[in-house]
Amino acid sequence: MMPTFPPPDFSEPRFSAFPDARFAPAPADGVLPDGFFSTTNLPTFVHLNGKWIAPNEPRMDAGIVKAADGSLWVREGRRLNKGDLVAIGEKEDGTDGIFVQTQLIPHGADPDAFTFMSSEVSREKPIDYGHMARLLVEEKERGGYPVWVTGPALVHSRARTDMSWFIANGYVGALLAGNAVAVHDIEASIYGTTLGMSNTGEITQGGHGLHMRAINQVRAAGSIANAVAQGIITDGIMYECVKNNVPFVLTGSIRDDGPLPGVITDALAGQDAMRAHTIKATMAILIATALHAIATGNMLPAFVALPGGEMRELPTICVDSSEFVVSKLKDRGTHQAFGVVTNAQDFMHILRLYVERELETRGTTPRRASAASGAR
Amino acid sequence: MMPTFPPPDFSEPRFSAFPDARFAPAPADGVLPDGFFSTTNLPTFVHLNGKWIAPNEPRMDAGIVKAADGSLWVREGRRLNKGDLVAIGEKEDGTDGIFVQTQLIPHGADPDAFTFMSSEVSREKPIDYGHMARLLVEEKERGGYPVWVTGPALVHSRARTDMSWFIANGYVGALLAGNAVAVHDIEASIYGTTLGMSNTGEITQGGHGLHMRAINQVRAAGSIANAVAQGIITDGIMYECVKNNVPFVLTGSIRDDGPLPGVITDALAGQDAMRAHTIKATMAILIATALHAIATGNMLPAFVALPGGEMRELPTICVDSSEFVVSKLKDRGTHQAFGVVTNAQDFMHILRLYVERELETRGTTPRRASAASGAR
Amino acid sequence: MMPTFPPPDFSEPRFSAFPDARFAPAPADGVLPDGFFSTTNLPTFVHLNGKWIAPNEPRMDAGIVKAADGSLWVREGRRLNKGDLVAIGEKEDGTDGIFVQTQLIPHGADPDAFTFMSSEVSREKPIDYGHMARLLVEEKERGGYPVWVTGPALVHSRARTDMSWFIANGYVGALLAGNAVAVHDIEASIYGTTLGMSNTGEITQGGHGLHMRAINQVRAAGSIANAVAQGIITDGIMYECVKNNVPFVLTGSIRDDGPLPGVITDALAGQDAMRAHTIKATMAILIATALHAIATGNMLPAFVALPGGEMRELPTICVDSSEFVVSKLKDRGTHQAFGVVTNAQDFMHILRLYVERELETRGTTPRRASAASGAR
Amino acid sequence: MMPTFPPPDFSEPRFSAFPDARFAPAPADGVLPDGFFSTTNLPTFVHLNGKWIAPNEPRMDAGIVKAADGSLWVREGRRLNKGDLVAIGEKEDGTDGIFVQTQLIPHGADPDAFTFMSSEVSREKPIDYGHMARLLVEEKERGGYPVWVTGPALVHSRARTDMSWFIANGYVGALLAGNAVAVHDIEASIYGTTLGMSNTGEITQGGHGLHMRAINQVRAAGSIANAVAQGIITDGIMYECVKNNVPFVLTGSIRDDGPLPGVITDALAGQDAMRAHTIKATMAILIATALHAIATGNMLPAFVALPGGEMRELPTICVDSSEFVVSKLKDRGTHQAFGVVTNAQDFMHILRLYVERELETRGTTPRRASAASGAR
Repeated sequence: MMPTFPPPDFSEPRFSAFPDARFAPAPADGVLPDGFFSTTNLPTFVHLNGKWIAPNEPRMDAGIVKAADGSLWVREGRRLNKGDLVAIGEKEDGTDGIFVQTQLIPHGADPDAFTFMSSEVSREKPIDYGHMARLLVEEKERGGYPVWVTGPALVHSRARTDMSWFIANGYVGALLAGNAVAVHDIEASIYGTTLGMSNTGEITQGGHGLHMRAINQVRAAGSIANAVAQGIITDGIMYECVKNNVPFVLTGSIRDDGPLPGVITDALAGQDAMRAHTIKATMAILIATALHAIATGNMLPAFVALPGGEMRELPTICVDSSEFVVSKLKDRGTHQAFGVVTNAQDFMHILRLYVERELETRGTTPRRASAASGAR
Repeated sequence: MMPTFPPPDFSEPRFSAFPDARFAPAPADGVLPDGFFSTTNLPTFVHLNGKWIAPNEPRMDAGIVKAADGSLWVREGRRLNKGDLVAIGEKEDGTDGIFVQTQLIPHGADPDAFTFMSSEVSREKPIDYGHMARLLVEEKERGGYPVWVTGPALVHSRARTDMSWFIANGYVGALLAGNAVAVHDIEASIYGTTLGMSNTGEITQGGHGLHMRAINQVRAAGSIANAVAQGIITDGIMYECVKNNVPFVLTGSIRDDGPLPGVITDALAGQDAMRAHTIKATMAILIATALHAIATGNMLPAFVALPGGEMRELPTICVDSSEFVVSKLKDRGTHQAFGVVTNAQDFMHILRLYVERELETRGTTPRRASAASGAR
Repeated sequence: MMPTFPPPDFSEPRFSAFPDARFAPAPADGVLPDGFFSTTNLPTFVHLNGKWIAPNEPRMDAGIVKAADGSLWVREGRRLNKGDLVAIGEKEDGTDGIFVQTQLIPHGADPDAFTFMSSEVSREKPIDYGHMARLLVEEKERGGYPVWVTGPALVHSRARTDMSWFIANGYVGALLAGNAVAVHDIEASIYGTTLGMSNTGEITQGGHGLHMRAINQVRAAGSIANAVAQGIITDGIMYECVKNNVPFVLTGSIRDDGPLPGVITDALAGQDAMRAHTIKATMAILIATALHAIATGNMLPAFVALPGGEMRELPTICVDSSEFVVSKLKDRGTHQAFGVVTNAQDFMHILRLYVERELETRGTTPRRASAASGAR
Repeated sequence: MMPTFPPPDFSEPRFSAFPDARFAPAPADGVLPDGFFSTTNLPTFVHLNGKWIAPNEPRMDAGIVKAADGSLWVREGRRLNKGDLVAIGEKEDGTDGIFVQTQLIPHGADPDAFTFMSSEVSREKPIDYGHMARLLVEEKERGGYPVWVTGPALVHSRARTDMSWFIANGYVGALLAGNAVAVHDIEASIYGTTLGMSNTGEITQGGHGLHMRAINQVRAAGSIANAVAQGIITDGIMYECVKNNVPFVLTGSIRDDGPLPGVITDALAGQDAMRAHTIKATMAILIATALHAIATGNMLPAFVALPGGEMRELPTICVDSSEFVVSKLKDRGTHQAFGVVTNAQDFMHILRLYVERELETRGTTPRRASAASGAR
């Protein structure tokens, strides 16, 4: 369904006229050499011994390192060791031996071809839920790896049930979130509230401390998985992740209460843990979070490399209540982000509805989430 | 379902101690006398010959006029004739002979009782679609008069199909909107675009003039109803209003292109036409419009008077992409507004889904909209 | 300071190959002929008897009418009389005898040249108050006609004093606003409040009716000018307009309380009154209003024609608390709008400060506003 | 200027009727005992041996620990050691031996008394810059400790110069921010851009990598202070902090590029470093940051304890482009936050202007920032 596009035609004469890329050693651990090439998230090719090679593990705002075996890797500056060979150059047009493919021309004439790449963000634009649902169903069918990145509004607003359904039914490759998502989700499982607010939006008596009590119970249990095993957590997002072996990364921030056990409190360790999933990602769904969405955008390539050298766009859906987060994400370089300006609760509910319809059309029946999570 | 509440107990001794209200003549056409009582949208009672009487046609920011037959009417200042007798007073506690009921205490202990009146507005609060759907279904069952007030984003974002469904199935007592709603709806029917944007959000070639061409066709036909009769308009919001005899008021603004025939371009005539519906309203749904929502809020009482003297809150749902419009509506005095912070398209789609589910529960099947409008 | 740009070079051979424009009669009063050319706000030229002529009074979303004397006028469809000759065509590239100049290439290499035309809107962008102040000072020096269009937030937030200063000192060619701006301004002059809120943001006792009392006093006086003459209104925006003979247009809307005498309640008469000023405009400043800003944008050309055939951009500054209004204005075709995302109070205060500094630099001293208005 | 208020009158009989607080041991490191008392940011008193004692270092969402010497400390759960004695109770009214003072009644009748505590947030409210400027000048005079917490928009939008001025002139007790604030500030010093955008908002050629190059230079220098000493950083926020010995805490997040040396990447270590300043804070100014503002709000008491037992409110100003961040901060418990809805650049510029005016009034002349930073 998603159109594919080829790499540049390096047999064109202009490419052979370009020099090989130059490399210089890192002057110290974690320090790039002067004039280092700063990467983008677009398809990038390095001229090496007359061949154009795409470095492994692409992301923006990093360097390109040549390993001892001649292989090329995109590496954050902080991960360099003194002496690592780093590509040098400021030009992206090949004249420094590095070529960035800024024109992505798909095969054929699929009218959907540029939907994601070129879209403006506006609350007044129609949202094509059918298209998004098909993408997600196809990802599952082809064994893709959709990465979901969510903020706490998803749990506040009771999209929790729908998120649990997506996890239980195999639409989530990995979940990237912060401490708060898990705290609210677990408070909801234990006390039926989020930050002391009931699921009809009422403030409960003594509710302001409930999230602290929820955290404390999980700390006493030692881990989220233990708390599920001990029957402390009986439904919801974290429950379904544990039960269905869906990997999750909870990263810490200075806002965190607790935190819960298992939250990675070091930001750099957190980035590394997230990137272990983004390098496998074939789709990204970012919902109601500025911090985690932009963090993920920073480390997400704009494309997926297919076996055989073809590429396709990496569908990146960003849902927020205002245009601002999506625009910021795009301004920071995640140009492929497709913005959906709506409430997280509504987005989740309609997307699930359309996925269910798509499955009916295909004659597939979804597996239900556990009783509690699956109830509507 | 909605709780009712009684008027004040005027047999309490304090009420008989209050004087009768005083009246003074309007000094000129359209001018209130000095010291006039300025109304609110809450239940209001005037002491007249020892009895406490609720004036007819309540609204905020108006005067109270005593007619020749002794009946009381809430009247905008501009509608006064010289010599009309207008109630005088600044106090709302009875000491000037006028009592405003600011405490609305429902019978019984229905936990839903204060849901509307006391709610904070936030995109992070859960939205109780089930509750809203039941209210709407009950309104239809009891023969209520739900007034819908919509902005053009409803049409841009393709909630047009769902809005058509609500009209065709009897959930719309009257539609209050501006020229733009009808223009976009009719452009969509004739050309399949809104402001030249296709229903997948693409900009079409030469699209910028299509709304002008749509307007021009209806102007040539003489009226919207004629354009429906002549087969120029074949589906959508205006089509369903015409076909189902649902009254609509299109009021003009300085932003209008055209305008379409039938648009009331004089703001005061427009207010009068809108108020002819708001005085009958038993529910109000305001979607994606600041101008029309606040205009309607200005003329909408916060309550419905029931036969027998009881009252109930007038459920007022205000949907917008940001908290701002709802907060502004409340700041301007429409305290009963219940805010839903989401995208208009998503709101309409889920509300319809919940109404359909509610009908299934009750064993009722909705009549479909005309083929084109009803398609999902 | 603002760069100028020439019209197309019509001596190029391709232009003589284009046909003369075709015209067809309006089939009825207020109805355009089929296939009418729908105007934009860009420089437009009509091929007539082998010459390329720019129609008078350009605006978007209108037709081009040929008068009996052969002169060309841009006219709203509703203003046509049956039989008026209207230009026909859908192409803007000359092949239908009409050419729209979409490429505006200024003389020289002034780096400011495209500042306005190409700017993205974002709260994170620096705001160049110095540049805006210089533009405004130059407009006054050259006898320009800056049109200010304001919403009521300007008065709520006490930018009222600064706005009064701009009027008193000759920076306002005309003021276009709604009833509410004048109501709040006059309430502030009479009672020291706006909608019952004091100038430190406190809600005053009995304040909710004060705007109605203010309106009523002016209605009793018969006009705003009378109320100034009678000493009812003693300072502020309307006061300075009256005292300094600055023309203002107050247009009505369905939201209006009152309205004040002099408010034009018919939307079409209101558009005509506004357009009498926009056709003279050499600069436009739109502050804290969606309705009036978009209405003005609809009727404002993107350029000013200079004597001798040269043109320059019509600087259009749009100030709002969110990106949304500015983006909407641009989406609706006012591409030249330069967005400033900030609070109206702060914008006014800093702009005045920079104008005062610019005058100091030039050795000019501003005339003060009247004592009350000028106090800071 | 800020009113003070007394603690509760514990000589009232009801207080002696309350029991002493109970304590239970922490069951494990970092785990609170069941039924622990969860703190708020309001004045809190613990009944101990018949006396009411305010625990040290108050903050919300923590426990109260009794040290071996009988002193009381507010401690985050994660900082507990097994066996630490923690106060038990859910009631805040004294019946569990713990009393939270929710009514803060200032002495006298200063009309400003409740300005901060009770304010609604709205872009339409006047902003009293004079009041804020006086508070800040008084803080400096009395040797207070104003903590500033800023987001990167402050640097993007060129409020950088004004922020530098406040640091250089002694109005900043400590600066709490993230990596991005320092990165943009240093990019501006070295390259004159922020994220490749010039100070007039233009995107520069090759600009997207400049922040990475700036980071890399500081990493090569080893620290921000070294980079200042070596003349790499020659002006701006970080420069003034180093030159004027103003302490700063830069905490890391998963969004960070780099990070810069000195950034605390562990979230818990970051919280501890921030709290070392918030326990000394006598005023807080939070600008254009959701993450850091809410993190600071979590650890900031709502009041300052004065010598002698009196208290006063801790003035907390929160500046953001939308009402949302301020409302969220308040929802999360920082009720004392006073919201200013405006652009960070404009806020800084006008606040500085008013501080300068206040100093003129008092006959004090501010020390200028270093030449480069001080230029306007």
